Amino acid sequence: MTLYLDQLHGSLADPLLDSMTFLNEITDRHPEAISFAPGRPFEGFFETDRVAEYLDVYVEHLRSERGLMEDQVRSTLFQYGPTKGIVAELIARTLANDEGLAVAPEALVVTVGAQEGMVLVLRALCADRDDVLLVSSPCYVGVTGAARLLDISTVPVPEGDPAAVVNAARALRAEGRHPRALYVVPDFANPSGVSLPTAVRRELLAAARAQGLVVIEDNPYGFFTRTGRTRPTLKALDEHRVVVHLGSFAKTCFPGARLGYVLADQEVVAPDGGVTLLADQLAKLKSMTTVNTPALSQAVIGGLLIRHDFRLRAANAAAVAHYAAGLSTLLAELERTFPAAERAAGLGVSWNQPEGGYFTVLSVPFRADAAAVRRCAEEYGVLWTPMADFYPGGGGEQRLRLSSSSLTVAQVREGVRRLAAFIRAEVG
Amino acid sequence: MTLYLDQLHGSLADPLLDSMTFLNEITDRHPEAISFAPGRPFEGFFETDRVAEYLDVYVEHLRSERGLMEDQVRSTLFQYGPTKGIVAELIARTLANDEGLAVAPEALVVTVGAQEGMVLVLRALCADRDDVLLVSSPCYVGVTGAARLLDISTVPVPEGDPAAVVNAARALRAEGRHPRALYVVPDFANPSGVSLPTAVRRELLAAARAQGLVVIEDNPYGFFTRTGRTRPTLKALDEHRVVVHLGSFAKTCFPGARLGYVLADQEVVAPDGGVTLLADQLAKLKSMTTVNTPALSQAVIGGLLIRHDFRLRAANAAAVAHYAAGLSTLLAELERTFPAAERAAGLGVSWNQPEGGYFTVLSVPFRADAAAVRRCAEEYGVLWTPMADFYPGGGGEQRLRLSSSSLTVAQVREGVRRLAAFIRAEVG
Repeated sequence: MTLYLDQLHGSLADPLLDSMTFLNEITDRHPEAISFAPGRPFEGFFETDRVAEYLDVYVEHLRSERGLMEDQVRSTLFQYGPTKGIVAELIARTLANDEGLAVAPEALVVTVGAQEGMVLVLRALCADRDDVLLVSSPCYVGVTGAARLLDISTVPVPEGDPAAVVNAARALRAEGRHPRALYVVPDFANPSGVSLPTAVRRELLAAARAQGLVVIEDNPYGFFTRTGRTRPTLKALDEHRVVVHLGSFAKTCFPGARLGYVLADQEVVAPDGGVTLLADQLAKLKSMTTVNTPALSQAVIGGLLIRHDFRLRAANAAAVAHYAAGLSTLLAELERTFPAAERAAGLGVSWNQPEGGYFTVLSVPFRADAAAVRRCAEEYGVLWTPMADFYPGGGGEQRLRLSSSSLTVAQVREGVRRLAAFIRAEVG
Repeated sequence: MTLYLDQLHGSLADPLLDSMTFLNEITDRHPEAISFAPGRPFEGFFETDRVAEYLDVYVEHLRSERGLMEDQVRSTLFQYGPTKGIVAELIARTLANDEGLAVAPEALVVTVGAQEGMVLVLRALCADRDDVLLVSSPCYVGVTGAARLLDISTVPVPEGDPAAVVNAARALRAEGRHPRALYVVPDFANPSGVSLPTAVRRELLAAARAQGLVVIEDNPYGFFTRTGRTRPTLKALDEHRVVVHLGSFAKTCFPGARLGYVLADQEVVAPDGGVTLLADQLAKLKSMTTVNTPALSQAVIGGLLIRHDFRLRAANAAAVAHYAAGLSTLLAELERTFPAAERAAGLGVSWNQPEGGYFTVLSVPFRADAAAVRRCAEEYGVLWTPMADFYPGGGGEQRLRLSSSSLTVAQVREGVRRLAAFIRAEVG
């Protein structure tokens, strides 16, 4: 039987997915290129034999701290488990230490990465075609993709602009639509690298509350400060349960576990007056997406949390230093390569100054599109990501995203050298 | 912020989800009850220290057979990986041995259980509100739940009735709707226990092909024959790529890995004439649901497949015998407890004779609803599942599903004794 793409779900014809496929393909075709493209963690801190060690630590925890008998230990690892997960308490302890969050374990749902968490939250909050998700623009493609999968409309609002959120919500309601939530990455955002000042965070929460919007906070990079400065998460500032907090262990532990969580402590009132937590409603949906998060992944990350005394910030000290060095090198090399005097003379090249995280945005005076990626890869051996893919409402055509996260300092230096040669050739 | 259930997605108000929650709660409240309720594998074959062993086997396979260097092994386990997975080739070899299927690894997508596979397949095939999924009725709640999550309409057709499939497809088209696929569990189905004769399988494939329907075959229980008899899967009989085959390792390995796969070898033609496999389209969607299937789960199941020489049927010999003994005991005890003479005299109790799998359906002369489950649990210490939950179009109100899978033979005997006492009390 032959199927026809234009009869399949519309998300499959979305150019965004094709551009992700394109980037994967071009990366495969140029294995020797230096890649500023993927938002991947650095691999130098991974150690293969740690998996079995963490598993042992978790099993020992089940035996000695939780007092489980051997057959219960076995069931915990091998059998179907609770939909909300088996390590919520361990995660809650870690969030208390690392973020100062007082989290009730029953408000957590352990998910297959933050991505599944996004799907669950969007699905729960958006009931019909008039329900709208506001997204900070530029925006992580995972959330616009998840919305597309679920046929949920998204409306972009400029990143870090509480007044724009209010205006967008009002305009939507004037059209008879229902703005339901706002997606935002407050720390070292993907793709912009931007961090919101604490005052803006408070204004954003007040604006969301006034407009009846749930704030969906996604915070995969929060630990990775370059300047030493850290700010409270939106959830830590949240006095009115406005914020649903998405967490990920992909960057703070490792991606291969695919472990994330949703902190959803909102009360949900049923027509009969019964009250549940939003986390319980998300768990109902999860029983239809993946049933459970793999116990193996939960056990290994659980063991890692125990081993590090429920303090991932401390456990990530070397990683924080690595990412800071890479990002600082990137910024310094850009400055050295494109000096201020040359920029002032109208070179048309500029970049932002992220305070941490994986990403920097570079503006250039030419179209930074797929064709440019291909030219740059083939002729200069360096890869990056076009920013236009991250603007749901259009924009960013002359910007590119540089990720320094998976590279060594030496690779960053060589990468900037190659990139500069490409840019000068394009400009010249 | 308070949320209101009737403003959240409609799937959350579906009584089906509440009835699953109810069954979980009542199971928790009666830990000493004998439970015929859950479709869980028997735990007696799980061994905790095998996890690390299988992981070692997989790592050794990466080193010696795939020739990966140590840093590549590390990346494979810890880093983000290919969306379609890392063990497709190992699964393909196993399917060749166990099912006689010649599978191209690139036609496989490794998923977080068969449940995620269902979500991906339904999402890909059903583009808008006029697209309809036909489901065998009675039907596994995971597929009707996944459809509900995605706002996809389902239409029930009687199980194993190819003519009814044709009639339903024609009737839908006459209404201007588009029947897109048929979901079916051909072997020892959940919940009915029914297996389709090979001739019916062929007729079903011919009917689906004639009506332009993709057949979604879900086959978690196929190994567990009670009679020694096995039949070819729909995919093995599929000469025209009509069948998308969902696979699960939950019952043949263990649920805690949450590992499944989709075999989707259909060609998809794009408007520009480009041809891809349906598996590649499913992978695009997967990048928006879970990004990757956890490498840890893939590695452990991969190691298990290698360790068992890619022959899970042979590896499951003891499990097959266990399930056969439990099911045969259940049927024999029912026969002994409710003899044919008493049934012929109008007792109103009957059951089917599954050839294998986990499930038997019992008909009783009273409403087998949640209230009955509660009475039976509280007063008789035995649990079961109401069948009505499995009929999307209504029906099954006086039937209950008995699962013998997770019980020992002694528990099955005692469970039937208790259940019989309950039934006689209800009838009397």
